[in-house]
Amino acid sequence: MTATTGDGTVAMVDAVVYAELQQFYAAQMQLLDDGAAEEWARTFTPDGVFEQNVLPQPWQGRHEIAAKMRGAVEKVAAKQLERRHWIGMVTARPAGPGVVRTRYYATVVQTPAGGSAEVHLSTRAEDVLVRSGDSWLVEHRSVWHDGSTAEG
Amino acid sequence: MTATTGDGTVAMVDAVVYAELQQFYAAQMQLLDDGAAEEWARTFTPDGVFEQNVLPQPWQGRHEIAAKMRGAVEKVAAKQLERRHWIGMVTARPAGPGVVRTRYYATVVQTPAGGSAEVHLSTRAEDVLVRSGDSWLVEHRSVWHDGSTAEG
Amino acid sequence: MTATTGDGTVAMVDAVVYAELQQFYAAQMQLLDDGAAEEWARTFTPDGVFEQNVLPQPWQGRHEIAAKMRGAVEKVAAKQLERRHWIGMVTARPAGPGVVRTRYYATVVQTPAGGSAEVHLSTRAEDVLVRSGDSWLVEHRSVWHDGSTAEG
Repeated sequence: MTATTGDGTVAMVDAVVYAELQQFYAAQMQLLDDGAAEEWARTFTPDGVFEQNVLPQPWQGRHEIAAKMRGAVEKVAAKQLERRHWIGMVTARPAGPGVVRTRYYATVVQTPAGGSAEVHLSTRAEDVLVRSGDSWLVEHRSVWHDGSTAEG
Repeated sequence: MTATTGDGTVAMVDAVVYAELQQFYAAQMQLLDDGAAEEWARTFTPDGVFEQNVLPQPWQGRHEIAAKMRGAVEKVAAKQLERRHWIGMVTARPAGPGVVRTRYYATVVQTPAGGSAEVHLSTRAEDVLVRSGDSWLVEHRSVWHDGSTAEG
Repeated sequence: MTATTGDGTVAMVDAVVYAELQQFYAAQMQLLDDGAAEEWARTFTPDGVFEQNVLPQPWQGRHEIAAKMRGAVEKVAAKQLERRHWIGMVTARPAGPGVVRTRYYATVVQTPAGGSAEVHLSTRAEDVLVRSGDSWLVEHRSVWHDGSTAEG
């Protein structure tokens, strides 16, 4: 899937929605990097799905998403690593009333205690987002890790 | 050229245009990293110019831009590298009816198959963009590579 | 401080303010990386404060901010390094008339003359911003460096 139609026109959302999406992603990444796994899980719909091409199975629903992310967050903390998830190059297109599809890049910058920052990994991802008040929730997220030899 | 006027005021475009520019750049970078050289060339005007301080000559017009980028894309694919071009820190100012000038940073994150992500290069760039419907086309792009000892 | 309220709602500013903030940050980072220490200092209020957890004391007021940054900029230039400050994952919330509080990530990509780009450091930061015409000024900035063992 590309972000343009056949004639080179860029599919877009309006400025209001784009600002909402940018702020939603910023808040969501901060929750993750703050280790707030349960609050992070609540940025998905109750039955939301989070899949990555490097994992054998998707995580399904807030309960599983919170529990699995809690485990991941604790491993990172135990290694005394600080991670910053950056989302960028977000394209977005309307996909029905209150639904938006996005495609974007996500990169993790990691710093060990007392050490130097480095790029930890690079990915591309696609979301189905549904409106919730003046913000959004993730109904479905697929992430592909660059350099991965896993199926995807 | 700086992004502020002499009294510290920041030159800006309005929120609608800024959201268009951000989505345009996101779509344009995705096309490039997807290897869609021909579609990427159509994000320039028919007689658009793409120059980099590390290249001996500018690329001129969609035909040359597509052909040169097709070659570059194939070299990257042959090395089994995945590249992600990130654009950020975009300043923009109106430069006549339907014309905007931008200045921004562009960085490439690269991941070899089976390997680790790393920052491949860092640049700053300036564009002249012209309106095309509810999006934009690049009329002129100049890129300066950080650390380059080339003239620029 | 997280960017969400207890019920998972994301605190936000409207699209107009968010576009102003993004353009303000972009212009501010370009000034810094261009070595324009004095112009950069004028993006703070006259009595603005800039503190980092790795520094023994905050810098207070435009005069001190300009002088200290001038010294830092000259050290970087003497080492023939080009630095690009990227700000991202910006959350923002209204904090009174003409006042916004933000939280965000800032990362520096560095390239030595003739050398390769690399991530130099990763931080998170919080600003108090006050409106100035159609843009903003920093009244107070706190930066925490990832991996730092300094108090913070």
